[in-house]
Amino acid sequence: MESVRSTIDHQPSPTRRGLMFVTFEGPEGAGKTTQLTRLVARLEREGVAHMVTREPGGTPLGSRVRDVLLDPALEIDPLPEFLLYSASRAQLVANVIRPALDRGEVVVCDRYADSSLAYQGSGRGLEGALLADITRAATGGLSPNLTVLLDLDPVVGLERAARRGQPDRLERADLAFHQRVRAGFLALAGREPERFLCLDATQDEDTLQAAIWAAVAARLGV
Amino acid sequence: MESVRSTIDHQPSPTRRGLMFVTFEGPEGAGKTTQLTRLVARLEREGVAHMVTREPGGTPLGSRVRDVLLDPALEIDPLPEFLLYSASRAQLVANVIRPALDRGEVVVCDRYADSSLAYQGSGRGLEGALLADITRAATGGLSPNLTVLLDLDPVVGLERAARRGQPDRLERADLAFHQRVRAGFLALAGREPERFLCLDATQDEDTLQAAIWAAVAARLGV
Repeated sequence: MESVRSTIDHQPSPTRRGLMFVTFEGPEGAGKTTQLTRLVARLEREGVAHMVTREPGGTPLGSRVRDVLLDPALEIDPLPEFLLYSASRAQLVANVIRPALDRGEVVVCDRYADSSLAYQGSGRGLEGALLADITRAATGGLSPNLTVLLDLDPVVGLERAARRGQPDRLERADLAFHQRVRAGFLALAGREPERFLCLDATQDEDTLQAAIWAAVAARLGV
Repeated sequence: MESVRSTIDHQPSPTRRGLMFVTFEGPEGAGKTTQLTRLVARLEREGVAHMVTREPGGTPLGSRVRDVLLDPALEIDPLPEFLLYSASRAQLVANVIRPALDRGEVVVCDRYADSSLAYQGSGRGLEGALLADITRAATGGLSPNLTVLLDLDPVVGLERAARRGQPDRLERADLAFHQRVRAGFLALAGREPERFLCLDATQDEDTLQAAIWAAVAARLGV
């Protein structure tokens, strides 16, 4: 929040009411896209200026990096995997997220740095301090104001993802990995309870959306 | 040197005489490829087991990252640029360079970490300590035993590169940038005079190759 504020202090905007950076986190199959889409529709109806993006991706560079990361034919070790996500993130923050926040828009992002900490840190065992240092550099210290964590038992999540088609590289990884990732997300949420809205993703869509909108509205003051 | 030794100490090899990691550095147009190719031919004639690779590239992931980095249509900020090089490097060191050194081969690499320190650090102004930390992680601390630096006035180098065809994204950058890169390479060489063989790249090819082979042969003991 500090870093968002420092970026825009010198550039006040009439839509400043909308200043907010919201991220969605959680495993594949938890319903992130559904809930994110519904939140965006609600922002639209409420007349709140906003911008939607995702990781990896969101810039021409990010799209190319995304293609590389999600190619099931490529062998990628944990550290280069993390560095690729960080490269996409650095380009996205500097060229898309910060400018949108500076314009006073609400930025909604499908995955952000917490995914790297959970997947490459807790999941693949990379050292947390190194990941934190690189993440701080890649984001310029920009942290979300609200992170919606859709928590789900990996067994349920993988079944849901499999029903949607061919599993990508992440989805094919083993169950123990996904259990470490889940624990990683929950540990992150436990360390920053003010930032995280942790929701049981097995609840029905309307219940989830109501909780998400309540958290967003409270922060926006609408 | 220390890290190479620690990797192979527990795995002695009959071709251990050949253990050596040689990198070629310098600007575009300095003749790195010519000299590297001649060194490899000489190693072949001398019957020294060896392996040749390059950065970015050298692995399936590295090739994909190389295509992204050298695409003149893509906008890439300095930090993501560095992170992409580091991703390619981490994959290359773990999967190609270390295994070859463990087999007792001489590894010859066209560019390595010094290029990132010179181009993204000195050239684009990224903070040296951050680059050093990430490089240490990406390489696992593996430093070359010999780095051949082909030093060249950027004006001459750019003319040479332009004669070889379309300039890529790096080559199109401005002259002041290339002057900072040159100064960066020379500063690195000044800090590690034992590792660097710094050569005036305007000398004729045979003179350069004789100096390079002398340095390699002295370290190999052939």
